[in-house]
Amino acid sequence: MSPSDLRYARRPLSDRHDSAPRQPVSGGDEPTRSPAALLADSRHGRVLGVERRLAHRMLRAMGSPPVGIVLWDGRRIVESNDSPVASVLFHDRVTFWKVLLDPDLQFGDAYSDGRLEVNGDLVAFLETVYRHRARSRNSGSLAPSVVLRWLHRARANTLAGSRDNIEHHYDLGNDFYKWWLDDEMVYSGAYFATPTTMLDDAQRAKLDYVCRKLWLKPDETVVEIGSGWGALALFMAKNYGVTVKSYNISKSQIEWARRRAKDEGLDSRVEFIEDDYRNAIGRFDALVSLGMLEHVGAAHYREFGRTTDRCLGPNGRGLIQSIGQNQSGETNSWIERRIFPGAYPPTLREMSDIFEPPGFSILDIENLRLHYAQTLRHWLDRFEASSRQVAAMFDHQLVRMWRLYLAGSCAAFTTGGLQLFQVVFSRPGANEIPRTRSKLYATE
Amino acid sequence: MSPSDLRYARRPLSDRHDSAPRQPVSGGDEPTRSPAALLADSRHGRVLGVERRLAHRMLRAMGSPPVGIVLWDGRRIVESNDSPVASVLFHDRVTFWKVLLDPDLQFGDAYSDGRLEVNGDLVAFLETVYRHRARSRNSGSLAPSVVLRWLHRARANTLAGSRDNIEHHYDLGNDFYKWWLDDEMVYSGAYFATPTTMLDDAQRAKLDYVCRKLWLKPDETVVEIGSGWGALALFMAKNYGVTVKSYNISKSQIEWARRRAKDEGLDSRVEFIEDDYRNAIGRFDALVSLGMLEHVGAAHYREFGRTTDRCLGPNGRGLIQSIGQNQSGETNSWIERRIFPGAYPPTLREMSDIFEPPGFSILDIENLRLHYAQTLRHWLDRFEASSRQVAAMFDHQLVRMWRLYLAGSCAAFTTGGLQLFQVVFSRPGANEIPRTRSKLYATE
Repeated sequence: MSPSDLRYARRPLSDRHDSAPRQPVSGGDEPTRSPAALLADSRHGRVLGVERRLAHRMLRAMGSPPVGIVLWDGRRIVESNDSPVASVLFHDRVTFWKVLLDPDLQFGDAYSDGRLEVNGDLVAFLETVYRHRARSRNSGSLAPSVVLRWLHRARANTLAGSRDNIEHHYDLGNDFYKWWLDDEMVYSGAYFATPTTMLDDAQRAKLDYVCRKLWLKPDETVVEIGSGWGALALFMAKNYGVTVKSYNISKSQIEWARRRAKDEGLDSRVEFIEDDYRNAIGRFDALVSLGMLEHVGAAHYREFGRTTDRCLGPNGRGLIQSIGQNQSGETNSWIERRIFPGAYPPTLREMSDIFEPPGFSILDIENLRLHYAQTLRHWLDRFEASSRQVAAMFDHQLVRMWRLYLAGSCAAFTTGGLQLFQVVFSRPGANEIPRTRSKLYATE
Repeated sequence: MSPSDLRYARRPLSDRHDSAPRQPVSGGDEPTRSPAALLADSRHGRVLGVERRLAHRMLRAMGSPPVGIVLWDGRRIVESNDSPVASVLFHDRVTFWKVLLDPDLQFGDAYSDGRLEVNGDLVAFLETVYRHRARSRNSGSLAPSVVLRWLHRARANTLAGSRDNIEHHYDLGNDFYKWWLDDEMVYSGAYFATPTTMLDDAQRAKLDYVCRKLWLKPDETVVEIGSGWGALALFMAKNYGVTVKSYNISKSQIEWARRRAKDEGLDSRVEFIEDDYRNAIGRFDALVSLGMLEHVGAAHYREFGRTTDRCLGPNGRGLIQSIGQNQSGETNSWIERRIFPGAYPPTLREMSDIFEPPGFSILDIENLRLHYAQTLRHWLDRFEASSRQVAAMFDHQLVRMWRLYLAGSCAAFTTGGLQLFQVVFSRPGANEIPRTRSKLYATE
């Protein structure tokens, strides 16, 4: 955060409404004028009224959520009659115009740099914005929806591209993730049997739930695509007596996972392989992949399906857990450029490219969206509690960037913009799998 | 069945292998010769060897299942070394050639007419054929897979077309279905909590399971698409205290359902409407449709989705149960022409056309394939027990036709050629629905 940002942050934000007197909006005026023309106006001193009107339109384009916009000179703009959940404070004119022109990328960047702030609960603010945006989806008004189209063109996930993309996200270092993940270092949605379940328990419950959905039996073989820090592979070997080959291309995760396997005496049963999933070798009884498909990209699902087909034996079954969406679209460009290069949350239709060409049978799909929202709440709380250490290790920009990412993801799950699909599939005609799910819930 | 058929049926089938001496197959010969040319040969007396060789090729094209082919003169052809599960007996040469040239349609028609028979358990025979066919799927040999591509172009389901198509199947009369369905007259897959559950209990369990998956609350409103004989609508009103509007275009079913509603004093809470689902009016808390989507046709799923979107309120959720498949294809032409005009079992990808355009959120998909197989076993047993009455009311052809249809469906479910998808969906962001499934299984 720069000294100039701090100057803005100290400015008092006293009144809840426009401090400049409201003027009637000349509705017939703006639609015909380009942003460049409006920018030219600002050079001629007519900017104040124009910026206020644009702030109003920005809110209307978002479906008039009960949130305020506060400009650098203290003017406050609201559009809804409900009392505001929170306000966005623009610290300078340039930031306001940048967000107007390229909201997807610029809102996140400006928030990360401290050039804008959200006064109020960040998750609640984003939930409000997302809910209203979803309702006004087809309003056809000003395209800039300040915060997000949670969707955008992803980067190529070639063998080399995937490695770069994954390093960007995961090679921030194990310590960074240790500060805010659970004890087992599970970086995917947990399973909360009750609303008060703690995160560590919910992550262990998720690992067990996955094993039960796969009906793992002792001495079976499992291939895992995407190890994370090794939690699931080690859990399966320890609690279900299976042997596991787990593929990952993040060097720092692999090192951590191998050390854990050795420490727990499981290195003869669990092998962590630093390689791309497309290079997986062997035939297995089960395939599992948690929170990795998001990195694959829809263009590569057929390839993912071919790997799955090649790796599964005649009685094989699999479980893939992935963030997804109800309608296909693009990843938010800020998320795609700053947080998760190459990432894309698929629809179930898009995921069919994995299962349909090899003729797999879908057995069970569960949407655990609200479980991920709750997981993110825990992560965000822990992240905030560690923010001083994170800032010392990196900088304030990274703290704000990850705060927005975690809060935004949480809000997207609670408001239904993102889904969490857990898909169980098998070879067709695999009749030995239990016919009802009731045993899955016998212990809960 | 004609007297000439009976004559053939009396012919003894003594030996298990070719009674004519086997000759080496001149592999390089047939592929270049058209069926017409081969037919011409038969006129010159060279037919015996050719027909035997064609029977061998027929079996190889099916993946060499352990089944026999018995020709009208008693010659028996097998291809597999395993002991045969059953044999197909062709009663005459014309039937053999017809099945060779157009197996999809002609096998079913010849079986219905009694021009061919299956000696042995019909379901086991079909299961064996389907399993081997699935394995040899890409063998690229002789296209005729004697029994089925379980898939074919469906008839148009326009408003008028749908009515014709539905009348074909359901207006055989209520008595016909009463002979072999359960007491509640439920004509869709049941839910067997245990393998020994009886059909009546399993159908009631299914109705209850559907209500629980929809989380119905007293005084909510439900729209049903496809009433059948009214079992689900009446069950929901009686046991969950909801009011129901149920759409159906089968006149004989509607009459039956209305009488039941009156008899049970539920006619104030359940309205059976003789109209197409596309004409449904009103806003409801829930939408349900069991075993009706198969009649809609993939070309109309977007329309189905628009109707669903129009009918569901802001907290609306729905459940659609449909027969489906793992890979898209055509309906078997015999099923499509003789049993279910206009029918098509969709893939989950195809079903996305219902859910994705209105932005519905998929909450839960369960594949109940083996439950439908077990349901069909019960139906087939009951049908056989009533076959004398059915033959008296209609004729032997109808008995054989329905036997093949029920047995074929059963075999397709057990071998994984057909799926049964139960899909639960809701408006996006409907957060009041329970977050875990455990309560669904609390009573089992």
